[in-house]
Amino acid sequence: MGKGLPKRSEDYSQWYNELVKKADLAEHSPVRGCMVIKPYGFSIWEKMQAAIDQMFKDTGHSNAYFPLFVPKSYLSREADHVEGFAKECAVVTHYRLKNAEDGSGVVVDPDARLEEELIVRPTSETVIWNTYKNWIQSYRDLPILLNQWANVVRWEMRTRLFLRTAEFLWQEGHTAHATRQEAIDETHQMLDVYANFAEEWMAMPVIKGVKTESERFPGAVDTYCIEALMQDGKALQSGTSHFLGQNFAKAFDVKFADKEGKLDLVWGTSWGVSTRLMGALIMAHSDDNGLILPPKLAPIQVVIVPIFKTDEQLAAVKEKTAPLMEELKASGVTCKLDDRDTQSPGWKFAEYEMKGVPVRLAVGPRDLENNTVEVARRDTGEKQVVPMEGISSHIRNLLVEMQDSIYQKALDFRSSRTTETDDYESFKQILDEKGGFIMAHWDGTAETEEKIKEETKATIRCIPLNRKEEEGTCIYSGKPSKGRVLFARAY
Amino acid sequence: MGKGLPKRSEDYSQWYNELVKKADLAEHSPVRGCMVIKPYGFSIWEKMQAAIDQMFKDTGHSNAYFPLFVPKSYLSREADHVEGFAKECAVVTHYRLKNAEDGSGVVVDPDARLEEELIVRPTSETVIWNTYKNWIQSYRDLPILLNQWANVVRWEMRTRLFLRTAEFLWQEGHTAHATRQEAIDETHQMLDVYANFAEEWMAMPVIKGVKTESERFPGAVDTYCIEALMQDGKALQSGTSHFLGQNFAKAFDVKFADKEGKLDLVWGTSWGVSTRLMGALIMAHSDDNGLILPPKLAPIQVVIVPIFKTDEQLAAVKEKTAPLMEELKASGVTCKLDDRDTQSPGWKFAEYEMKGVPVRLAVGPRDLENNTVEVARRDTGEKQVVPMEGISSHIRNLLVEMQDSIYQKALDFRSSRTTETDDYESFKQILDEKGGFIMAHWDGTAETEEKIKEETKATIRCIPLNRKEEEGTCIYSGKPSKGRVLFARAY
Repeated sequence: MGKGLPKRSEDYSQWYNELVKKADLAEHSPVRGCMVIKPYGFSIWEKMQAAIDQMFKDTGHSNAYFPLFVPKSYLSREADHVEGFAKECAVVTHYRLKNAEDGSGVVVDPDARLEEELIVRPTSETVIWNTYKNWIQSYRDLPILLNQWANVVRWEMRTRLFLRTAEFLWQEGHTAHATRQEAIDETHQMLDVYANFAEEWMAMPVIKGVKTESERFPGAVDTYCIEALMQDGKALQSGTSHFLGQNFAKAFDVKFADKEGKLDLVWGTSWGVSTRLMGALIMAHSDDNGLILPPKLAPIQVVIVPIFKTDEQLAAVKEKTAPLMEELKASGVTCKLDDRDTQSPGWKFAEYEMKGVPVRLAVGPRDLENNTVEVARRDTGEKQVVPMEGISSHIRNLLVEMQDSIYQKALDFRSSRTTETDDYESFKQILDEKGGFIMAHWDGTAETEEKIKEETKATIRCIPLNRKEEEGTCIYSGKPSKGRVLFARAY
Repeated sequence: MGKGLPKRSEDYSQWYNELVKKADLAEHSPVRGCMVIKPYGFSIWEKMQAAIDQMFKDTGHSNAYFPLFVPKSYLSREADHVEGFAKECAVVTHYRLKNAEDGSGVVVDPDARLEEELIVRPTSETVIWNTYKNWIQSYRDLPILLNQWANVVRWEMRTRLFLRTAEFLWQEGHTAHATRQEAIDETHQMLDVYANFAEEWMAMPVIKGVKTESERFPGAVDTYCIEALMQDGKALQSGTSHFLGQNFAKAFDVKFADKEGKLDLVWGTSWGVSTRLMGALIMAHSDDNGLILPPKLAPIQVVIVPIFKTDEQLAAVKEKTAPLMEELKASGVTCKLDDRDTQSPGWKFAEYEMKGVPVRLAVGPRDLENNTVEVARRDTGEKQVVPMEGISSHIRNLLVEMQDSIYQKALDFRSSRTTETDDYESFKQILDEKGGFIMAHWDGTAETEEKIKEETKATIRCIPLNRKEEEGTCIYSGKPSKGRVLFARAY
């Protein structure tokens, strides 16, 4: 079984890499830093996209599309922003190739040099605020609530499928508002959308918080995030929502006339989640036998594996299961019957286990006689022989139960791996021995944050929004603190 | 009315540009050659995408995602292919910016030069066939039926919104097959998908045909296309489907073992439609007052404009129309009520006319008394006062009728602008005076094709698949011909 996946307990990192490959999710492309998202992996991403997109639309946002290229001068307008992205920019300098004069192939045509270099967008604040300048004159033009689904490029030297690639797919929301409060409310609203998506669809509990200054998005006033815990005890930042204040409005001179005709700078937000969520989804739930998918995001929710030796037996199974498939389909459950005779049932069991199909039905001659079906759930591995009568509603209930159960398991895991400590030595010990989230007091300075990071590789994931305000002493400096923050080693 | 659109009869080109802008579809970005697709325009594109994507899935295709960048050496592998695209390539040469030493801002870091330049994909055959090489060993791995939705870049000096931009959005299907016939069948199947989409969704009649050698996709054995006629008598190529033979398999050494274990090169196809379809949609149907959208692709299908002076009147209209909106929504009709008191009904009428909302309902105090509603259809401008009773089914029928009627009008127009001629002088006269499609005999040579293009700016749009085989004489050379081909001036 497991087609030779390494065990999580032995080599988590290798387990992840192999799983991504063996479950047909993605692979490294020979193109520097870029990945190929394979059809099965992409169909999971499509389900995520559809759910998120609907949540955006339900909160009043529309999609639009802005250019792939950012002129270098735009990127430079906001000082922190360019500082943050300059070191990872793919730069277009020419617009033509030509045949080499020595016949050795095509070369870049030196005569086709761009006057100004174009950056392949690492994010689109600059190009979008440059556009908003023309769209906004008065308070009547506000708010602007847009999102785009796009590819972005941030040059990475060390890449990992889904988690860190030079090119990745994401959505980026960019909104413009007349007041500070409205922009702050939007920032929080979108953080909630992300948290709800993570918990309700991905079955992945998250902690909402605000980043420290050193972890802030370049150009933001405040960066909010959702942080999830992976099975190896490392944290994964799964979505961010930025309150931009008036920073980009200032950089691109975007002003509006209020009801009294007074000009003021526009307030902004931006927020994004990416194909990194695929990495989070995989790592949060899967086991040594392969992928475990929450039913809501599974491209195939139910697979039927007929057990047969003869064509007649196969025909009988198909006849018996056809009405069930119809019924499931009609109630919105995605169901596949795998009737290949080139692979054994055992091979198919392992295959769908690897691919994380939530429910597997096996139907053989004895089931036909007894009017039963064997139902196996992927998350717990439980198998049960169930009467055919009422099987469709049994499965629908099971899918709901599994969605909850997968969430609950991840939540329990997180609880068991969240520790409070007031002592730096035990802080280090917890990190090394148990991992997970640590809630500890911090003096609020970047110096302390940096020292802890240097010494332990743990970073402040966020200042949780729901933390208790309490007096305390920084575990590192012993200086006073107003509350605990969330530490972890992270992806 | 019409907010000052130029008339089509006076300046078609300017009419198009203004319409795209005034209907809030798209605008030029200050980023060289790139456009911004605005929310309203993008919502039409989303409807097109959803319909096309479903048609792909119904014909057995899955989506995947391949890298944005193509190493220069990949592009060079297929000789015709690189020849075709070399002159319009955006080239990434560096991966980092740095602060200029003189403090003048950021500059490209000369130390971060790529060993091999990366091309921003103009199309993805090379990067995909390079991947397929690893996916295909045996006939059991075939066929591969993939599609990706992506952005591509082809450097253009003269751009027009939707019709010709440096960056555009599209889908590109890439399939791999064990036999020549299967690949040819796939090429035809996808051409049919495009034709059906154009006719059934866009209400735009198209002619299916095969391109002449000189218009073939670089690297293809045969390029099939659908050609539509715009209202100014110019043709617009609206989709292409390429039979690639074994060309890319050869270039990337992609072989499979057949049932007997014999190795053979894989057969391929590729096919695409792009945001250019937006240009086709706009130009095929719209009038001097604005956009006309076939109901199936309209983001808002029905708009209700309340006629009111007082808040009470507005409340009464809303109360009256609320059940109607519910009913329409439940039957899948998108309906919007515009209750703004900042704009007059007349302003709103013009606005929704410009934006091509198919059906406009106006409801005022007199309608409330009489239990009626004024129904205006966008395509013909007809207005009718209709009883509230049964209005929902009236509207649903009207939307179906309009979809047909818009198609029929475009078809009638095309018939009236399709001319057969056997004489070169009259050919030229038709082009200048009447425009449209001309069916004429051609001797089959690239020389004649080129001469005709030079002298008249008309090109062979395609050799129609359903053309009559008949003996004839080339209008230009007088040499023998086996059938008429489709000429037109084109976008």
